[in-house]
Amino acid sequence: MSKIRIGIVGYGNIGRGVEKAVQAAPDMEMTAVFTRRDPSEVKICDGSAAVMHVGRAADMKGSVDVMVLCGGSASDLPVQGPQFAKDFNIVDSFDTHAKIPEYMAAVDAAAKGTTAIISAGWDPGLFSMMRAMSDAVLPDGSDYTFYGRGVSQGHSDAIRRIKDVKNAIQYTVPIGGAVDAARSGARPKLSARQRMTRECYVVAREGADLARIEREIKTMPNYFADYDTTVTFITERELTENHSKMPHGGLMLRSGGTGQSRHVMEFSLALDSNPEFTGSVLVAYARAAFRMSREGNHGAKTVLDVPLTYLSAKDRGTLIKELL
Amino acid sequence: MSKIRIGIVGYGNIGRGVEKAVQAAPDMEMTAVFTRRDPSEVKICDGSAAVMHVGRAADMKGSVDVMVLCGGSASDLPVQGPQFAKDFNIVDSFDTHAKIPEYMAAVDAAAKGTTAIISAGWDPGLFSMMRAMSDAVLPDGSDYTFYGRGVSQGHSDAIRRIKDVKNAIQYTVPIGGAVDAARSGARPKLSARQRMTRECYVVAREGADLARIEREIKTMPNYFADYDTTVTFITERELTENHSKMPHGGLMLRSGGTGQSRHVMEFSLALDSNPEFTGSVLVAYARAAFRMSREGNHGAKTVLDVPLTYLSAKDRGTLIKELL
Repeated sequence: MSKIRIGIVGYGNIGRGVEKAVQAAPDMEMTAVFTRRDPSEVKICDGSAAVMHVGRAADMKGSVDVMVLCGGSASDLPVQGPQFAKDFNIVDSFDTHAKIPEYMAAVDAAAKGTTAIISAGWDPGLFSMMRAMSDAVLPDGSDYTFYGRGVSQGHSDAIRRIKDVKNAIQYTVPIGGAVDAARSGARPKLSARQRMTRECYVVAREGADLARIEREIKTMPNYFADYDTTVTFITERELTENHSKMPHGGLMLRSGGTGQSRHVMEFSLALDSNPEFTGSVLVAYARAAFRMSREGNHGAKTVLDVPLTYLSAKDRGTLIKELL
Repeated sequence: MSKIRIGIVGYGNIGRGVEKAVQAAPDMEMTAVFTRRDPSEVKICDGSAAVMHVGRAADMKGSVDVMVLCGGSASDLPVQGPQFAKDFNIVDSFDTHAKIPEYMAAVDAAAKGTTAIISAGWDPGLFSMMRAMSDAVLPDGSDYTFYGRGVSQGHSDAIRRIKDVKNAIQYTVPIGGAVDAARSGARPKLSARQRMTRECYVVAREGADLARIEREIKTMPNYFADYDTTVTFITERELTENHSKMPHGGLMLRSGGTGQSRHVMEFSLALDSNPEFTGSVLVAYARAAFRMSREGNHGAKTVLDVPLTYLSAKDRGTLIKELL
């Protein structure tokens, strides 16, 4: 059987993670990386794939089965999602929770003969699946989500788009006592601010108005306004030396009851590399997008719409025999 | 909209758990309990539902939307699954892992105009979903499943079917160091025997051949033969006083790698009442069976075939907005 042909749009950290995951998949091959940069300056690992300017992507219609969009949620995906979904099956990890319905509607309007699985990272993504599963099983309950300690790509990206920010990295840090309280079964009310803090390390351009940058970060809706956020300005060299690894992790738990009984369902991730793991999730959902598209199941989808059998390179019979 | 009409086949611990979950579901109602006992002797909690002999179940065709089969996997379900799937949508928690393909084929052959979701408990069930999800996301990795400390209904039931056993309860106990080893990322090989032990408390009939009972337990394939199993004979009174609660729990984790990075995905449950929780899982999948059947998606299905949106009483738009 011919392999699923993957295009990667945007070759940053997540794009490189997608490339590694495609190389590890027995049923996929990478056709091309699409970049906004000068293609001759972008070196990729897979020697058999092309590097093309993103403006030429539409020429590849019919030659790429699924485009994996690896841009940021703040400004890349709102444009690229609907644009690429017109011509290609797509997968992305759009992660601005509050704007998902709006983004989904825009992608759905474009995906007339294609399948677009949006927000398929780990949160939104795998954590969303846990929330849906545990909410259905324990309708009387409370959800708790904790992130970190780790680097959030989406939040780092959002800072980088602020005027006069050269580079930035953002760590999400869970508040220890809050995790214990959630696990206790007592179902405490914990605001976002009580659960996690956000630490930002920012490299600014020379002469930048640092006070303005700090204010823009701390008041940014959805990303930072609801958290205790600290901003520290550092040099590019400090960033490279002390903040070049991208670990992450977190946990989602639901504490709920049936009759007189209490139950806790918990899902956790401990990741050495957030972009490599996110790339692996995207690739599993690229497989699903390809299969759903082939079945004529078009339009914008989420991880909640996709049966788990669609994610695996293994066939259904094998999954049922070996993993059920 | 009219409610989903649920029938419960078998009113033991799981049947009572299903009843509680149906009462908590806004979109369901319980039509009847079907029992092998004299119906006049079975007292149920839901005053508006009927109690009928299981032999009369076929009369209720058209009056029950989904039959939730709450019998044991050793001898009840292999008969009841195919039998009920002829006339009704069904859900069950068939839990003999090694025999699932065979059972599924038998149910599938019967479910011609109905939908049958089999093995929808927590393992097989929710843990299977985690195995499929994590296997797809981290194809290079190792799975670990630990149970307990808790009572396994399936294993207790299997003991109770041995000749001259009046009653029995089985605790599954995880081996502490093995859990730590699995979480370490070192991906050790751990056999079933290295991960868990099984403790059986058995009430035998007077004059029974205890040595034979003990031997039959310890050599039972799938259930006990692969574990270090201890058998302790106790009185009915000791059983009631010391072993009448049914807590359970466990964890499923996958330790895997991408590139040079290591990742751990972990799902765990801590349950006050295993049968109530299992009942809640069955009821969520009863909702899914009803919806899939209405869409003409018939035959035998597993939890790996069902999109998460089908499990919830909430509509898709609400799930995407609130839980994604």
